[in-house]
Amino acid sequence: MWWIESSRTDLAVERATMVQQREGQIPGIQSSEQDLDGIKITRVQVLTPQAAAKVGKPPGRYFTLECPQLRYRNRALLKKVADVISKELSELASLPRKGDVLVVGLGNWQATPDALGPRVVAQLMVTRHIRDYVPQELGGRLYPVAAVSPGVLGITGIETIDIVRGIVNQIKPELVITVDALAARSPSRLLTTVQIADTGIQPGSGVGNKRPGINQETLGIPVVAIGVPTVISGASIAADVLDAYFSKFNPHARATLDSVQDFLGPDLFELMVTTKDIDVQIHEMSKLLASAINHASQPAITEEEMLDYLQ
Amino acid sequence: MWWIESSRTDLAVERATMVQQREGQIPGIQSSEQDLDGIKITRVQVLTPQAAAKVGKPPGRYFTLECPQLRYRNRALLKKVADVISKELSELASLPRKGDVLVVGLGNWQATPDALGPRVVAQLMVTRHIRDYVPQELGGRLYPVAAVSPGVLGITGIETIDIVRGIVNQIKPELVITVDALAARSPSRLLTTVQIADTGIQPGSGVGNKRPGINQETLGIPVVAIGVPTVISGASIAADVLDAYFSKFNPHARATLDSVQDFLGPDLFELMVTTKDIDVQIHEMSKLLASAINHASQPAITEEEMLDYLQ
Amino acid sequence: MWWIESSRTDLAVERATMVQQREGQIPGIQSSEQDLDGIKITRVQVLTPQAAAKVGKPPGRYFTLECPQLRYRNRALLKKVADVISKELSELASLPRKGDVLVVGLGNWQATPDALGPRVVAQLMVTRHIRDYVPQELGGRLYPVAAVSPGVLGITGIETIDIVRGIVNQIKPELVITVDALAARSPSRLLTTVQIADTGIQPGSGVGNKRPGINQETLGIPVVAIGVPTVISGASIAADVLDAYFSKFNPHARATLDSVQDFLGPDLFELMVTTKDIDVQIHEMSKLLASAINHASQPAITEEEMLDYLQ
Amino acid sequence: MWWIESSRTDLAVERATMVQQREGQIPGIQSSEQDLDGIKITRVQVLTPQAAAKVGKPPGRYFTLECPQLRYRNRALLKKVADVISKELSELASLPRKGDVLVVGLGNWQATPDALGPRVVAQLMVTRHIRDYVPQELGGRLYPVAAVSPGVLGITGIETIDIVRGIVNQIKPELVITVDALAARSPSRLLTTVQIADTGIQPGSGVGNKRPGINQETLGIPVVAIGVPTVISGASIAADVLDAYFSKFNPHARATLDSVQDFLGPDLFELMVTTKDIDVQIHEMSKLLASAINHASQPAITEEEMLDYLQ
Repeated sequence: MWWIESSRTDLAVERATMVQQREGQIPGIQSSEQDLDGIKITRVQVLTPQAAAKVGKPPGRYFTLECPQLRYRNRALLKKVADVISKELSELASLPRKGDVLVVGLGNWQATPDALGPRVVAQLMVTRHIRDYVPQELGGRLYPVAAVSPGVLGITGIETIDIVRGIVNQIKPELVITVDALAARSPSRLLTTVQIADTGIQPGSGVGNKRPGINQETLGIPVVAIGVPTVISGASIAADVLDAYFSKFNPHARATLDSVQDFLGPDLFELMVTTKDIDVQIHEMSKLLASAINHASQPAITEEEMLDYLQ
Repeated sequence: MWWIESSRTDLAVERATMVQQREGQIPGIQSSEQDLDGIKITRVQVLTPQAAAKVGKPPGRYFTLECPQLRYRNRALLKKVADVISKELSELASLPRKGDVLVVGLGNWQATPDALGPRVVAQLMVTRHIRDYVPQELGGRLYPVAAVSPGVLGITGIETIDIVRGIVNQIKPELVITVDALAARSPSRLLTTVQIADTGIQPGSGVGNKRPGINQETLGIPVVAIGVPTVISGASIAADVLDAYFSKFNPHARATLDSVQDFLGPDLFELMVTTKDIDVQIHEMSKLLASAINHASQPAITEEEMLDYLQ
Repeated sequence: MWWIESSRTDLAVERATMVQQREGQIPGIQSSEQDLDGIKITRVQVLTPQAAAKVGKPPGRYFTLECPQLRYRNRALLKKVADVISKELSELASLPRKGDVLVVGLGNWQATPDALGPRVVAQLMVTRHIRDYVPQELGGRLYPVAAVSPGVLGITGIETIDIVRGIVNQIKPELVITVDALAARSPSRLLTTVQIADTGIQPGSGVGNKRPGINQETLGIPVVAIGVPTVISGASIAADVLDAYFSKFNPHARATLDSVQDFLGPDLFELMVTTKDIDVQIHEMSKLLASAINHASQPAITEEEMLDYLQ
Repeated sequence: MWWIESSRTDLAVERATMVQQREGQIPGIQSSEQDLDGIKITRVQVLTPQAAAKVGKPPGRYFTLECPQLRYRNRALLKKVADVISKELSELASLPRKGDVLVVGLGNWQATPDALGPRVVAQLMVTRHIRDYVPQELGGRLYPVAAVSPGVLGITGIETIDIVRGIVNQIKPELVITVDALAARSPSRLLTTVQIADTGIQPGSGVGNKRPGINQETLGIPVVAIGVPTVISGASIAADVLDAYFSKFNPHARATLDSVQDFLGPDLFELMVTTKDIDVQIHEMSKLLASAINHASQPAITEEEMLDYLQ
């Protein structure tokens, strides 16, 4: 099915929808939706290995928040979205925790759309090393958080999981939270959707990819993954365009197509699609996620105290 | 014609080709091609106002260099391409000149794909202010070059032409060279094509756009524009994909389509398409263009002396 | 007098104090002090050319705010300081104005301690180009502001005054506000002091420097200069250290010293002294100044509306 | 002895000289000097624990290259210096090696003078992950190199040694090379001196500092440390100035001084001193060190091949 195969997406909600459109309801998948004043929340649970194979995502809970208005940077809305994320994160990750929490900012800080993770890490309230040194009145209310940006394989020469595993073995945190830029299929999802999953992440997920994931299996502790779509692949856009054309003008033609690789040049597959103001969007989204993680990790610290502490 | 209208491109060679595919040879347009060991050179001359209206580019000479291998950063090839550009620029701009040359880096240095102009400016050998102070043996061989990056309207609140005109009125250069990131239609052109035109530039060119250009008419001196495609619009990619589909499977269907806006969501039109490694590509291309401009402006300074002078 | 000559400072208050320590009260200089809950405000007026020659600053009004706590980033204090600056700026610059205000960010954005001006400009609410396009309810309350970062002579090859004059001649603003990083003499002043003067600025001020200033004389309109000390020269630090030594141990030795150049190596004079966390300090101070300028320029826009508008 | 205590320096050659000036020849320290056309090379060996205690540096070999002309960016000289460093590094670190070499870029990439390590890492030829994928003709000649920039304690909340140890335990390299920005005492040493030591490094070295080092003892494998002075502390500058004053005018007064802390304000101790063009200097020095490490690690790869591979 070309329009699925050529559509790499890291969003469970998109993958489940694509499969359901083709095959109807999938056994082993539960989902529910909720609307909070313009913020759409979807909870998907992948319950069985069979369902996991079908949607191409490991078993676990996937929380998805969608808010098309997010791109327009209204302070009140940003605050509300941060609150929803903070609350959900607290629940999925059992925050706050007395033991260390390690936040891992995945991606390449030198490539704007991939820099989300490192940018979030740079704005976190990191406390693991200072708990014993801060003033009494603050110290008693602080929970220990550490944070790293391990870089990407092309720059380090080391699989990211090896760096993370090494650090985890040294400092023995109770929990890892990863933050990463994702690929989506639909343009409307870029920088408007946040996914939180208790499954960890599978780097460069896709058919035949055998690279080890960052998850409970490989680290031995819970891994909660926060991700935001920042790019769409050239191939996904092509599939999206053809899909829209077929839906409107020629529903039967869709089935006659085997693969888009046949007639689309290879250059298209080297491309990424993103928003025109991606620099600004990454800046805003990294502030929003850092704020949500900070509040979930440090519920006893007020907004004012946090702003004083951070730059 | 949807596949033209939805295909914004700043490349004269792409526009001429699209129109010719539809209407055949256009009167008032001359073009010639040349191949230099894998570097394809096209010279297009728009001779009449009628031809200009048809291709949507002002009358003048457009030099285009295409080199698909450029993305792979082979030093020997980069050097050869820089030499070709330097030579062509010398001819189109009558370099070197005894009078001041002002290089203008257009675009927004905070948005990677739009930062090409400011990045080139940052690597130029700027000499206008030092001619009288450098050692005798260098000074006698230096030609005066100045350079500015005026920013973009959204950040300055001032039309770029007004900033450039103001500076030109103060320092009275003989020539302006602009450097800018362009939009192309075809993915294969991204970061592999360089256009040099003696027509100056038309910011945000398009139907109904009445913003004044940066050209001989508005500045009173020759303006040579160097540009490299760094992005494709979402709409162009859609047109490209549909075009490829029709060509292969359904040539007649092409004519039945009126507009792509009807069935493609508005989000697509807010997107830009670029290469996955755009950060690296902009870095490399800015070095290449700066080197070409430096050599055309300062033919008496050796490569070694230039590297010593620059960082 | 070595301890004055080797002490380059752009702060009128420091220069006046140094001269007064030596010569007593200076005719033609008026000054008053005020304390606002830990914020010290000094107003110096240089009234005569003779006084100007003595203190090495042109005649005019110099407002100086000092707040040692500013480095520690307490939100409430930052807000109070921004309010004081905003109010003083409104008075010195007669803001808001119906005519265009042009803010000029001086300095080099690639050199951290010199990047203050360009960083402030990047965070301003620039409105000159949008007044006619924003929603009615906002538009009626907006005053026109433009902003540029002209770069520095070493990078452009053009005297900054020429760039600014060219732009002023084109857009005819009513007022120019410059923002610049300054040199101080005393370590305690770095990033804790803000100077606002209605005299404009004198680039690289010092004996024998004949570069034209950016002021009413050269531009024909009022120029208000905002500056913050971000560096101390190596020579000033040396003078400061020797001064402290003499004061404590050997008051008479001070007079026996002719020049520090004699026994201090030339390397010292190529150095700059700044705070260890200058990156963070510049970030914070640029936010503070941008906020103060925004509020002085747009008094009818609420804090909330401004945050929505800005990133 | 105030002029030693207030003079933090990471350079063994400076520490040895200061101690020798006071006490004469130190037993257990061997040193030799060499001049190579304007490049001064000093080799210091700290042989005994007693000598180590005296100079405050662990036993081992310290190679120091000094070249005052280095700041002026002459290509030929940069090349010669890179060759000397590359050769010395090959010897001290037994390069090339068939087993993995891990390069660790220490410091904070967001603070310019501290960004040297991360900047070097960003320009290394990292090969550990690609040896099996590159073309045959290149692959056979490649040695495996990995590289990380672990960040600093204030940003990660984790001691750097813990991050490095974790990664070393995972990937089991044969050797670690650290790259770090150092503090010097003398202004003339900034960005003109390179130290290579087979002792690893001691973070924030100083009296009473108990933070674990990054060295053979803590990692179990050889650690070679490359460092370049990029800053001087405010206290060192003060000591340097007073020292120069006493030497010239008042040799006896030196002994009467107990401590500089008494009469110099605390602000001075929060300052750093660096060159005015530190941004450019860090850029150049990081290219030089990366080139030297690349050539030492990959002796079979030509200059041309390396430039093609790198950006």
